[in-house]
Amino acid sequence: MVWFASDNTAPMHPAVLAALSAANKGHAASYGADEITARLTARLREVFGNPHLMAFPTFNGSATNGVALASIMRPFEATIATRDAHIQNDECGLPEFFTGAKILIAPDVLGKLTPEGIEAIVALSQDHAPHAARPKVISLTQSTEIGTVYGVEELRALRAVADRHGLLIHMDGARLANGVAALGVSPAEAVTGVDILSFGGTKAGAALAEAVVILNPALIRDFEYWHKRMGQLPSKMRFVSAQLLALIEDDLWLTLARHANGLAQRLAEGLSGLEGVALVYPQAANALFVTLPPALAEALQAAGHRFYPWSLAGEHVYRLVCSFATTEDEVTAFLTDCKMHLLSR
Amino acid sequence: MVWFASDNTAPMHPAVLAALSAANKGHAASYGADEITARLTARLREVFGNPHLMAFPTFNGSATNGVALASIMRPFEATIATRDAHIQNDECGLPEFFTGAKILIAPDVLGKLTPEGIEAIVALSQDHAPHAARPKVISLTQSTEIGTVYGVEELRALRAVADRHGLLIHMDGARLANGVAALGVSPAEAVTGVDILSFGGTKAGAALAEAVVILNPALIRDFEYWHKRMGQLPSKMRFVSAQLLALIEDDLWLTLARHANGLAQRLAEGLSGLEGVALVYPQAANALFVTLPPALAEALQAAGHRFYPWSLAGEHVYRLVCSFATTEDEVTAFLTDCKMHLLSR
Amino acid sequence: MVWFASDNTAPMHPAVLAALSAANKGHAASYGADEITARLTARLREVFGNPHLMAFPTFNGSATNGVALASIMRPFEATIATRDAHIQNDECGLPEFFTGAKILIAPDVLGKLTPEGIEAIVALSQDHAPHAARPKVISLTQSTEIGTVYGVEELRALRAVADRHGLLIHMDGARLANGVAALGVSPAEAVTGVDILSFGGTKAGAALAEAVVILNPALIRDFEYWHKRMGQLPSKMRFVSAQLLALIEDDLWLTLARHANGLAQRLAEGLSGLEGVALVYPQAANALFVTLPPALAEALQAAGHRFYPWSLAGEHVYRLVCSFATTEDEVTAFLTDCKMHLLSR
Amino acid sequence: MVWFASDNTAPMHPAVLAALSAANKGHAASYGADEITARLTARLREVFGNPHLMAFPTFNGSATNGVALASIMRPFEATIATRDAHIQNDECGLPEFFTGAKILIAPDVLGKLTPEGIEAIVALSQDHAPHAARPKVISLTQSTEIGTVYGVEELRALRAVADRHGLLIHMDGARLANGVAALGVSPAEAVTGVDILSFGGTKAGAALAEAVVILNPALIRDFEYWHKRMGQLPSKMRFVSAQLLALIEDDLWLTLARHANGLAQRLAEGLSGLEGVALVYPQAANALFVTLPPALAEALQAAGHRFYPWSLAGEHVYRLVCSFATTEDEVTAFLTDCKMHLLSR
Repeated sequence: MVWFASDNTAPMHPAVLAALSAANKGHAASYGADEITARLTARLREVFGNPHLMAFPTFNGSATNGVALASIMRPFEATIATRDAHIQNDECGLPEFFTGAKILIAPDVLGKLTPEGIEAIVALSQDHAPHAARPKVISLTQSTEIGTVYGVEELRALRAVADRHGLLIHMDGARLANGVAALGVSPAEAVTGVDILSFGGTKAGAALAEAVVILNPALIRDFEYWHKRMGQLPSKMRFVSAQLLALIEDDLWLTLARHANGLAQRLAEGLSGLEGVALVYPQAANALFVTLPPALAEALQAAGHRFYPWSLAGEHVYRLVCSFATTEDEVTAFLTDCKMHLLSR
Repeated sequence: MVWFASDNTAPMHPAVLAALSAANKGHAASYGADEITARLTARLREVFGNPHLMAFPTFNGSATNGVALASIMRPFEATIATRDAHIQNDECGLPEFFTGAKILIAPDVLGKLTPEGIEAIVALSQDHAPHAARPKVISLTQSTEIGTVYGVEELRALRAVADRHGLLIHMDGARLANGVAALGVSPAEAVTGVDILSFGGTKAGAALAEAVVILNPALIRDFEYWHKRMGQLPSKMRFVSAQLLALIEDDLWLTLARHANGLAQRLAEGLSGLEGVALVYPQAANALFVTLPPALAEALQAAGHRFYPWSLAGEHVYRLVCSFATTEDEVTAFLTDCKMHLLSR
Repeated sequence: MVWFASDNTAPMHPAVLAALSAANKGHAASYGADEITARLTARLREVFGNPHLMAFPTFNGSATNGVALASIMRPFEATIATRDAHIQNDECGLPEFFTGAKILIAPDVLGKLTPEGIEAIVALSQDHAPHAARPKVISLTQSTEIGTVYGVEELRALRAVADRHGLLIHMDGARLANGVAALGVSPAEAVTGVDILSFGGTKAGAALAEAVVILNPALIRDFEYWHKRMGQLPSKMRFVSAQLLALIEDDLWLTLARHANGLAQRLAEGLSGLEGVALVYPQAANALFVTLPPALAEALQAAGHRFYPWSLAGEHVYRLVCSFATTEDEVTAFLTDCKMHLLSR
Repeated sequence: MVWFASDNTAPMHPAVLAALSAANKGHAASYGADEITARLTARLREVFGNPHLMAFPTFNGSATNGVALASIMRPFEATIATRDAHIQNDECGLPEFFTGAKILIAPDVLGKLTPEGIEAIVALSQDHAPHAARPKVISLTQSTEIGTVYGVEELRALRAVADRHGLLIHMDGARLANGVAALGVSPAEAVTGVDILSFGGTKAGAALAEAVVILNPALIRDFEYWHKRMGQLPSKMRFVSAQLLALIEDDLWLTLARHANGLAQRLAEGLSGLEGVALVYPQAANALFVTLPPALAEALQAAGHRFYPWSLAGEHVYRLVCSFATTEDEVTAFLTDCKMHLLSR
């Protein structure tokens, strides 16, 4: 069976398992007062070139977004996001629950928010206070849910609009590794203008490890209470921190993301030109969205390939995701099976 | 000064004040165990031809919607509404707060939900459980926020789609009177297929009086707790009930709504054909949405007319609302001032 | 029938009805931009000797407490209150819902919080952050739910403990009028040290009118959003403001409270010394808590007197409440019926 | 350094690490559709002798309690618990947040709820509906936060009171292993009468793994949505399930708990009779609460022993917790250091 269903069907990377094993020595202070967590924070400060950031290891992506947002807004405020943002579309109302606040959908271009779209939302709300929730946060996803990537200039432009209106910027970085790798810039540049980051480990190669990384020091105060109250404070925190540390020491996360992105590119190239197959969005990171003829989709599933329809993007659209665990052979097999099917008709 | 700003700048109708005075005799049991509340329930049962309905008097419209929705859904579910629904656009996140649940925006036609739009939302969610919130409630507004009205056949079609998917129907009836009057049907017909109703009194002529009216008896159980917990249970309830009773005894609410709708129609007719003036939506109830040339809008404001821009409907769009308290003379004065300005250029 | 059941079985005072009538003239700006609300604010500033206070008229007492608390705390914090506080015992979880935060019960003396009790709660929480919610607000009730009153010196001592720990003070003033009257001090003195006040109108003689009064100007910012989001923003606000203004113009609220307190005192004096009858708490304001022999309680109910058992205070304890509408004759009748029953055995 | 601070300063058991390694093979379906999760469910059904139970692996204990409670109550209801329950005292308001509902504190005997205490709470609430939140859930902790254990007969008596009033029973089983071991009964008997269980893995020897185990099949419906919405649904669920499975295969969890309880007993025996040292509660499971003379406490800390003061239990009270990782030598060292200090004065 070949899995392009999601980057969360992958196992953990061997280095992550090794780190868990190494962390499993004797007693350690709980709730983050351990040495591994201290080293994680120190390494994240290097990675993001930010000596003031604070990292709060967490369990899963949806909750990481939720607790990050909750900590920087009040319940009468609103988050601006795209229609296919994870917080809008894949979290079963968790962000509204954690924050008490609305999500306002702004128009997007290729899955990315634009200054104009945000200005429009802000203008509508200002005209209508206090009946309309007041925008407070712009939530970006890097790389986006449809596999595109915000360029550094785009991030700068969003920061400018944020500053104009006193907004904060949250980044859902569940696939930040893929974003950084796609951009070919430093992690610091890939989070330009961001105040608070959901730093993704699970899709990058961990078993289960994420973190809220607060880049803007003015927002750090009292976060420990949110961390606790939202059920995201690990008692034996070293075992979450160790996973993240394994990924960012020696930049393993970026090496793995380059691998995944590269295979997605190969897949995109191999699929382009096949009859009836079309890329819905330009490939940039590790996820492809393709229109497949129904018979082809069926044949591939029958041949053991695993992937999901993505109805939000239209009829007959499917998502193909590569991860650190995807192999060249798997990509080759998928492409071969495509060609075989098309020839066999 | 002439007010077309909203139906809530109007005073209360003299009959409502008289009812408050009549209710102000001696002690009465609190929290709804009084006689006036009992008479209100009895009269509502006649009005809606529903001997099982229960009425729970409340204070204001936003909260009435919120408590009605909260009582029939769980926080992982979702309400389907239009983009300009009051619950989406004018309640500062109250419905998300009261219910804990998402609002999903379906495409609308002239401010009205359609079976196709609802089917599309349901399909997307079903494909994606439990990551997508599960649709549970269709929330309609009668008359809508843009002054249109659901016909009885349209309501029947929505009931059919609701039944197909196990959904409940909530109606925001803040302007139900205007909807009934516009349709020229009975109140019962105007709420065809509705399970739970936000029954509007304030905009219909009360000082402050709304009610949750539960038409589907299966949903009544335990509502008293929601009523209390959401801060909408009046201790001296007789004074809310008396206002509502004054409106529905002798069908005063419908008489007043016909008056308001009629003046809105006169306004629409008078404005049509004026240069640069256009109705954005067809007039049906008591609110008009018109594009006005900026200079005209300014001139009218300067002449003492009060009305709001309605940016959600586009640039240079303004809302004009008639109420029971609007007079023929005021409509005439507004139209005259329009014509004078256009001539004077 | 004679009602000692609650001060909310009373009607509204004639002056309140007259004010509603006077307010019912033509159109007025909605949501608080009307003249009567401006006059209410001005008069409250005089009454409390505080030129910076802001008043936000609301509908009912439970919600007023909830929105006041919500606006000054974050959901990981806690309110300290007594076991019989209205927010703990009579609001069906509304305060936890509105604030998202815990209520921590401190030991009380005669229904009143003490500096020692608060210190103990704070110490426990500090030892245990962030696992224990962090105390943020002390919530006092003036007069208390058991009819006692905080003296000015007691309020000063609580302010000192609040300052020591960075706490804010909320006062549930649903019966503030009775508190002021009992103390014989100015309203300003009766709210010594208070940051935010639930100002009670309904029990003082209104039909339905309360207000959040923010005494500490640092807490005013953005309250309009809380006001809206919690469903407590009246659209035709003038009709709430007019009721409150009627009560505080010419100090009518205090005149009425002195009347109610005086009758409660007569009742207390008349009951003391009756066989098997005992005051559970010393009478100070308008509510009495008395132990009655079961046969006497039954006989009184049979004779048409209305009052509730108060199980929180113990077995065979009943609450007797006087209001502005209670008459000397009613008190006399109640006492006579007591004596008649005791003689008749 | 010797750790008696908590069972969450311990590492994971080697068998748990081995299970993580074994689970780390290739791709697996995410969100619980994997084979290891299926085996976990099957094994839990054996362990609890309940072929209908459903298990939902989660990340941490506080959230496990919160999501379990949320799924079986509505926000106007209440949970009955003891004053030192984890949900009341150690979760920073998370349960109120997840459920929207109140916690009502009932009197306890040695940290355990009693039928009488519950009856009293229920009676108070029934008298006062809908102003008082309605009790819906009894939440027990097995073993309790103060190290005592509910006997099977006690559980039966609580079930009877629950049935009398239509209540459900939740068990916080963060230390269920220690409870089972202390009782010397089967796991099924140790959860007699329980509807929904927070099954604890982390304190029993996992790195981070808990589960909601629904024993009452009527409560299973729709839990997947709660699981998701509360941020407790692991994407790579196999890595949580594997930890739990490692603990319950071959009853490792009970073997480890017997070890921990046994050392706590040795500690209790060793401390009893020392001058100035007293057990505050009878030892039954793996946690001791002892009064220590301040000088002794200081000397022990100085000697490298780690343990916390437990102010909730009184002044100079300390908690000593043994875990699977505690050794006989550590207990001996602690006792020796006690005796040395007492002799040296």
